[in-house]
Amino acid sequence: MSQTPPTPILDRVRLPSDLKALTDRELHRLSDELRAETISAVSVTGGHLGAGLGVIELTVALHAVFDAPRDKIIWDVGHQCYPHKILTGRRDRIRTLRTKDGLSGFTKRSESPYDPFGAGHSSTSISAAVGFAMARELGAETGDAIAVIGDGAMSGGMAFEAMNHAGHLGKRVFVVLNDNEMSIAPPVGALSSYLTRLYSEGPMQDLKSVAKGAVSLLPEPFQEGARRAKEMLKGMAVGGTLFEELGFTYVGPVDGHDLDALLPLLRTLKARATGPVLIHALTKKGKGYAPAESRADRGHATAKFDVITGAQVKAPSNAPSYTKVFAESLVREAESDEKIVAITAAMPDGTGLNLFADRFPRRTFDVGIAEQHAVTFSAGLAAAGMRPFCAIYSTFLQRGYDQIVHDVAIQRLPVRFAIDRAGLVGADGATHAGSYDIGFMANLPGMVVMAAADEAELVHMVATAAAHDEGPIAFRYPRGEGMGVEMPERGQPLEIGKGRIVAEGARVAILSFGTRLAEVLKAREALAARGLAPTVADARFAKPLDTDLILRLVAEHEALICIEEGAVGGFGSHVAQFLSDQGVFDRGYKFRSMVLPDTFIDHASPEDMYASARMNASDIEAKVLELLGVAVAKRA
Amino acid sequence: MSQTPPTPILDRVRLPSDLKALTDRELHRLSDELRAETISAVSVTGGHLGAGLGVIELTVALHAVFDAPRDKIIWDVGHQCYPHKILTGRRDRIRTLRTKDGLSGFTKRSESPYDPFGAGHSSTSISAAVGFAMARELGAETGDAIAVIGDGAMSGGMAFEAMNHAGHLGKRVFVVLNDNEMSIAPPVGALSSYLTRLYSEGPMQDLKSVAKGAVSLLPEPFQEGARRAKEMLKGMAVGGTLFEELGFTYVGPVDGHDLDALLPLLRTLKARATGPVLIHALTKKGKGYAPAESRADRGHATAKFDVITGAQVKAPSNAPSYTKVFAESLVREAESDEKIVAITAAMPDGTGLNLFADRFPRRTFDVGIAEQHAVTFSAGLAAAGMRPFCAIYSTFLQRGYDQIVHDVAIQRLPVRFAIDRAGLVGADGATHAGSYDIGFMANLPGMVVMAAADEAELVHMVATAAAHDEGPIAFRYPRGEGMGVEMPERGQPLEIGKGRIVAEGARVAILSFGTRLAEVLKAREALAARGLAPTVADARFAKPLDTDLILRLVAEHEALICIEEGAVGGFGSHVAQFLSDQGVFDRGYKFRSMVLPDTFIDHASPEDMYASARMNASDIEAKVLELLGVAVAKRA
Repeated sequence: MSQTPPTPILDRVRLPSDLKALTDRELHRLSDELRAETISAVSVTGGHLGAGLGVIELTVALHAVFDAPRDKIIWDVGHQCYPHKILTGRRDRIRTLRTKDGLSGFTKRSESPYDPFGAGHSSTSISAAVGFAMARELGAETGDAIAVIGDGAMSGGMAFEAMNHAGHLGKRVFVVLNDNEMSIAPPVGALSSYLTRLYSEGPMQDLKSVAKGAVSLLPEPFQEGARRAKEMLKGMAVGGTLFEELGFTYVGPVDGHDLDALLPLLRTLKARATGPVLIHALTKKGKGYAPAESRADRGHATAKFDVITGAQVKAPSNAPSYTKVFAESLVREAESDEKIVAITAAMPDGTGLNLFADRFPRRTFDVGIAEQHAVTFSAGLAAAGMRPFCAIYSTFLQRGYDQIVHDVAIQRLPVRFAIDRAGLVGADGATHAGSYDIGFMANLPGMVVMAAADEAELVHMVATAAAHDEGPIAFRYPRGEGMGVEMPERGQPLEIGKGRIVAEGARVAILSFGTRLAEVLKAREALAARGLAPTVADARFAKPLDTDLILRLVAEHEALICIEEGAVGGFGSHVAQFLSDQGVFDRGYKFRSMVLPDTFIDHASPEDMYASARMNASDIEAKVLELLGVAVAKRA
Repeated sequence: MSQTPPTPILDRVRLPSDLKALTDRELHRLSDELRAETISAVSVTGGHLGAGLGVIELTVALHAVFDAPRDKIIWDVGHQCYPHKILTGRRDRIRTLRTKDGLSGFTKRSESPYDPFGAGHSSTSISAAVGFAMARELGAETGDAIAVIGDGAMSGGMAFEAMNHAGHLGKRVFVVLNDNEMSIAPPVGALSSYLTRLYSEGPMQDLKSVAKGAVSLLPEPFQEGARRAKEMLKGMAVGGTLFEELGFTYVGPVDGHDLDALLPLLRTLKARATGPVLIHALTKKGKGYAPAESRADRGHATAKFDVITGAQVKAPSNAPSYTKVFAESLVREAESDEKIVAITAAMPDGTGLNLFADRFPRRTFDVGIAEQHAVTFSAGLAAAGMRPFCAIYSTFLQRGYDQIVHDVAIQRLPVRFAIDRAGLVGADGATHAGSYDIGFMANLPGMVVMAAADEAELVHMVATAAAHDEGPIAFRYPRGEGMGVEMPERGQPLEIGKGRIVAEGARVAILSFGTRLAEVLKAREALAARGLAPTVADARFAKPLDTDLILRLVAEHEALICIEEGAVGGFGSHVAQFLSDQGVFDRGYKFRSMVLPDTFIDHASPEDMYASARMNASDIEAKVLELLGVAVAKRA
């Protein structure tokens, strides 16, 4: 299906320095070839397509003008970096994107010196760029710092914090605002409307003549040059007062697909800028590839696809995704409870809340990429008597942690946290793993922490959360499809802090928290064949612990194994604390807690990740056998 | 020293509704009395004085115009709320501020229905107010929502996120920007310069006539009224485009101490506003009390004091504070290492970095109330080869957690985290407790986590961090004064992951992480009197664990007790995980982990807090005796 396109110019580019030998006309052709190569590569690997296609010309222009790796080009989020990878010595591996041992789908310091600052989460690039810039001011061996950040990411609070600081410092640093009118979801927020006004009320700037004129200026005394450059740059701007007021020189809006505008502009800025500069570039996600441009999400993330038709190749699925089960369950609860509202931080599709929004538009709040606000806004809603479901991926919930502690838990406000993408996530890799939520939530006094063992359990946990007005409650569930279990008609609230026995057995008990239960049951099957079937229980709650269940399992078995898809410090640690306080270990007891290993696990297939985390049925089986003293051949 | 001032008007006010019966002239006198009462109360209790004095007139005006508790007045941070407490039924307890079982130094939902949303940390009020406002839009029984936020707090990213969302929603909500030119530290950032321009370039608005005229308008059809109100409000504004561009109607600047301006303005807004409104009020911290006004920090926080002279009553101290030891050690390291830079998020005094800034102004960065940016900015500096020390209180570091995971730990960047105020903090109470950092830091692959047992250890840990270029490293230390131990001339880098035996003993080993070591040693003394002196060790590192030391302690003792000033999921949990993996519990072993209890501990003296946390010498002694099976009289 995939055909490698002819790329005569691109073939001459091994590193960005090779771009310096190309004429502007050749850079145009390079852009076309880079676009074709990007489409071809992603058709093979799947991944983020639209974002990369939107910055083809920006990528070429930045590398043609600046001098990476001495100059630091920092891509916010990083999912637009495939063209950058192709131009920075990684073309030969571009068709390994997001696969085990292949290239990361994001920028990554350990992968290339051309990735000065890795990403995955949004809104970090300006902070990093200001760090590089100030290090340069203090004598570090580093050149210019350029952050490339989308309009959605710009709405994140930390981007504002960084702008505020950069404007205060007044030192040279570049922010390219990649305004593509479409982050993952349609952007929300006043800033977005403001940006739209900037380019809809004024004409697109014809920067070519201005910039060309400026760059031809002869060298002159620094101060004078700075003054003149500033005046000249001011002449390039239409509006942009919001950024001016934060201490930035605003340049734009400029057509981010027009190399004839970008190249002279960047050359001028490189030659003349003395303080912080914001370049407002208008781009289009999916640009130049009709199937992506015509999709609602402009090809944000895609499976492997046919280059000609754009048709995606996806394996058929037998079970609904956890995300969809969550959303549908919430809709069902909300039908009979008008106090239920839903909050997402710029992930209506990812969290499934688009389904909720279709049904209850007024009761759905997309706050933008703003997890801190999302949590405290939810707390405000709860304080006013609503029943907010705040749906945030585990990894992004880290960004609202203080708000969970300070605004929700201390005040015992009944905010419901729907924690999607909990545990390992596959191709998105370490930056997106949801490894810490059990620990950082179960630590908090009064927080109820659940994990769904399968999609039917998730339905019940949504109902449990809806019914729980006494304080905050959280439930986690993984990325991907459910187990295919039979679904209940309606969710039934679970008793808080009570687990369940799933299968009776003997000698060893396995207490699972979350979806590893399926692997536990597989392990049980294998062990049963040896006559060693363990008892299997589903804890359901990491907090409060089902202490009765735990003590019963201890009393009736030689050994207890806890398992969870999270780092140490979570469920197993709470159980260990309880057991040691109870004196269970004093008299000798075999207790093990299987947790995620103490490493950041690189992107790979979920199967590979679970294998390296030693969280599969075979690992569980081996752990049981080891505890029973049954000799087994050591696995590699 | 404290004399209760005569307060005839204030004596007639039990609840805010009593203000409705007062004339504007009486409200003036009420303000004076409220100021005198606030000064008198804080002279007895100590606490935040300047902030409250800066909002006396705002407090009176808000309560005179709005209808709390139906209307929700939300004080950002909350340390300016003492006058509010006096007016809302808590005057009789105002001299119990910040003492055990007394009033909290912040707003607190459980304390009063007039505190609709508690605080302690900054920049949360707008999010909460938007939550209340949207609940009202959806039919909840709640009135207007008014956030009162300082200019420093406004620089926090989540305040921007909330403004961005509020402007997008377009619903009625009020933000009073309390621009007092002085948060805890002189405000930094471009936003602050912008605010200064707003009132320095234009005249203060004479709002009296405009507002009075507007309020006298007869009722009219809603839409028309909205349009006219908007136009009228526009007429009140000078500049403020930054807020206008975010979708707010900007009103001001207005003199926040002029009731004749505030009252008609708020009445007009209450009658007319239809969308989000930002009221820019200029106030002065410490206003009306000369000793506070003349202090550099305008009386931010104070000990008990003499009302006439302003002289503070402080107990003399024999040992330097941990904060000062940290700062002086860092200065010493930086003298011979020009790559060391220091970062604070608006706490130069609190973290001691003002000392560093005096010596190395160019190498000190105060980023404003912006912990997210502080962490990633530090990561950028580290990526460029600098040695950043990012000094943030434990409780505020929660706000940079995702950045620690995503930008620092995953990239293994050698950012040094100086975690002050770790553990219980006394009078600031639950919102400021540093209970979670051990858990949320030690979870992270590659993170080195230390805790100083005393101030001499802290000196060595600063040196250790300075020397550690291999990855991120953190060291925690408590609020308050050191132990008075002998101080080393120079810090010596510690061996990573190695603890130390402090006192040899028998039968029981106590492995302490952090400053509870002193109580452990006290307990040892008491136990020694019974011939039961335990071995005492200082772990120094929660990560990596000193597994040799732990195994040696286990081998040579019947029992091991871990103790740390942190929640479950931290040091003790890591030790338990290790011991269970090693099979130590299989054959029977007495292991206990003493951690902070699973409750939020209210403000009290540190001694009281440690007592309720059961973290004192007597608690440790009792734990040892219990493990040894020695019968003791049960404590209450």
